[in-house]
Amino acid sequence: MKNGLQLIFAFLILCSLMVKGQVKEQLPEGTLPNEFNIVGAEYPRVGKDGRTYFKVFAPDAKKVEISFRGEMQRGDDGFWTLVSKEPEVVGFHYYQVIIDGISVADPNGKPVFGMGKWVSGIEIPEENGGYYKPQAGVSKGKVSESWYYSDVRNEWRRCFVYTPACYDKEPERKFPVLYLQHGMGENETSWANQGRMNFIMDNLIAAGEAKPMVVVMDNGNIENFRTQPGENPNETRARFGADFTPILLNEIIPHIESSFRVLTDRDNRAMAGLSWGGLQTFNITLNNLDKFSYIGGFSGAGMINTDRLDEAYNGVFKDPAAFNEKVHVFFLGIGSEEHPERTKNLSDGLKKAGINNVYYESPGTAHEFLTWRRCLKEFVPLLFK
Amino acid sequence: MKNGLQLIFAFLILCSLMVKGQVKEQLPEGTLPNEFNIVGAEYPRVGKDGRTYFKVFAPDAKKVEISFRGEMQRGDDGFWTLVSKEPEVVGFHYYQVIIDGISVADPNGKPVFGMGKWVSGIEIPEENGGYYKPQAGVSKGKVSESWYYSDVRNEWRRCFVYTPACYDKEPERKFPVLYLQHGMGENETSWANQGRMNFIMDNLIAAGEAKPMVVVMDNGNIENFRTQPGENPNETRARFGADFTPILLNEIIPHIESSFRVLTDRDNRAMAGLSWGGLQTFNITLNNLDKFSYIGGFSGAGMINTDRLDEAYNGVFKDPAAFNEKVHVFFLGIGSEEHPERTKNLSDGLKKAGINNVYYESPGTAHEFLTWRRCLKEFVPLLFK
Repeated sequence: MKNGLQLIFAFLILCSLMVKGQVKEQLPEGTLPNEFNIVGAEYPRVGKDGRTYFKVFAPDAKKVEISFRGEMQRGDDGFWTLVSKEPEVVGFHYYQVIIDGISVADPNGKPVFGMGKWVSGIEIPEENGGYYKPQAGVSKGKVSESWYYSDVRNEWRRCFVYTPACYDKEPERKFPVLYLQHGMGENETSWANQGRMNFIMDNLIAAGEAKPMVVVMDNGNIENFRTQPGENPNETRARFGADFTPILLNEIIPHIESSFRVLTDRDNRAMAGLSWGGLQTFNITLNNLDKFSYIGGFSGAGMINTDRLDEAYNGVFKDPAAFNEKVHVFFLGIGSEEHPERTKNLSDGLKKAGINNVYYESPGTAHEFLTWRRCLKEFVPLLFK
Repeated sequence: MKNGLQLIFAFLILCSLMVKGQVKEQLPEGTLPNEFNIVGAEYPRVGKDGRTYFKVFAPDAKKVEISFRGEMQRGDDGFWTLVSKEPEVVGFHYYQVIIDGISVADPNGKPVFGMGKWVSGIEIPEENGGYYKPQAGVSKGKVSESWYYSDVRNEWRRCFVYTPACYDKEPERKFPVLYLQHGMGENETSWANQGRMNFIMDNLIAAGEAKPMVVVMDNGNIENFRTQPGENPNETRARFGADFTPILLNEIIPHIESSFRVLTDRDNRAMAGLSWGGLQTFNITLNNLDKFSYIGGFSGAGMINTDRLDEAYNGVFKDPAAFNEKVHVFFLGIGSEEHPERTKNLSDGLKKAGINNVYYESPGTAHEFLTWRRCLKEFVPLLFK
């Protein structure tokens, strides 16, 4: 009878909770909402152990999947769920929800531009991730949207420009510039949005590890790698993102120099890029060393055959002493899980030929944004010193 | 025989086109891609007559709809299409794609924050829409993302701050400030993103119609109107967005005044908002006239009963002469298609009681962003003069 009374009591409490409102949803223990969820969205969630928990309401769908992870399980309540069997790799990962075959951004998520469109992202926080988060006591810079007209493409364009906290406090001061490019399928929002570059810069500068600088992030015109009719792959590769060269040299740099207080000599101009943006960086800087003196490739570099180094980039490596004099930092970053040996071989080959360069390998990460946040964190302190 | 040869010839040409690549898709005549499409997306499209054309690839879906517009037709090629029977109303309209019951942003679209989440938008251009587009020969301002910590909500927050083109050219100059708020279901990105406010400001300032000013756009914390368990609707309304008051007064304003070169007296501080942001504007300004001297409600205003005007806002209207002395512009904007009579009655009632105010009715538009772009365009030239 006692048990029966307890049951009745519990049932009455339950009823009263339901009458008052909703019974609070049971959330899996040890999990937090994904950092890239919209305000109020409980799912997806990330466990302390790095496992991921997805939940989507789609009562009429036949099949719902999470990209790269598999099919979701349908519940009686119309909610579909998926829990990763293993912890996911630390860092930021693009994902989409696939509803009856069509891939879309997660309605629970903040959009990020990658894979040629606006998709979703899930973040498995890294243990010492403070460097890419806003910190108390650290002065904040700004990321500004700046518009200009491009004759090369007959279009209005925008770049995003990071200015450090001291920029507005010292109106007489001019700053060095880093031109920082994204990869294939990404755009001018990607570095600040999923890259968290503004917090990385704020924290480095406040700690005195990096010099205050302006960082310019534009659109490399490399959203979709698509072979045009009649084109062979080599032609596509040569064409893809190539118009960014005249846009940067003849339109973006003049725009920045007339709109922001920046230094304009080569010793105060750096360029770096990730993946295909790294290729664009090498293509632009190595052919224009009169304009750039710092070069960074993050999981991306130029087409350089170290057995035929003299032939690369119009013979720019022929005179190593001259090269080392001109280029103050030549940085090659890569993730340990994305076949680093190719980049390591490039670095070693260059060093063997007397070309100074910095090799950095991000431990445990692949061709993803955490690798590139870390590359930025390693590269920026080397600049303008 | 001749016809036969022509057919063979045409067939051979068709084959060669297909061998070389794709046969170029037939696009409906007199249409252009929606302004809010991602780069390269041909659909949705908008006709010169304002009709809309949607197309989505979803070969496995059972049912695909476009919100507010109806079911799409499935083609044999796995593409679903929908063409509006009538021209759509001029202006910006939120929409979603509904795939087997789940509403998502259009993968072809740039995301806009509205309806409490990231959705899509389609733009039916208005004939004299130049005022919200980038124009040649017009100096461009910037929209900057600026972070600060809120103790009210224990969270890092960002606002977007428009600074005019001359801001960086005149480092000694301080500027008046307009605090500009979005509506329910929107956020701090909405005014610049779908509102195009930066182009509206650039064009007005360059034409000499508006004074150069700083505009601050923050998050009113009004994404989702949700009654909490045990709460009645009046309590929800009173609570909804109310914490924005201490955040604006005690956190945002001090942050702006320490981070930007702005004037800090009440004659140089304005506030306006759309819809629920208009209610927040009235609630904040009318209770703090020592801090604000310009007030704008765009399709949104305070809870004011003109038959009991003396009771409103702690008696702020009791002395009309004093009110008119303090408040330099009291602006009430509304769309002609969203029951303007309520706002017109409020305006008339206030005038009858001797309270000066400006009434503006946007012709042909309802509770949508074109109404609010136009309100901004009418309101801003009245400020700080």
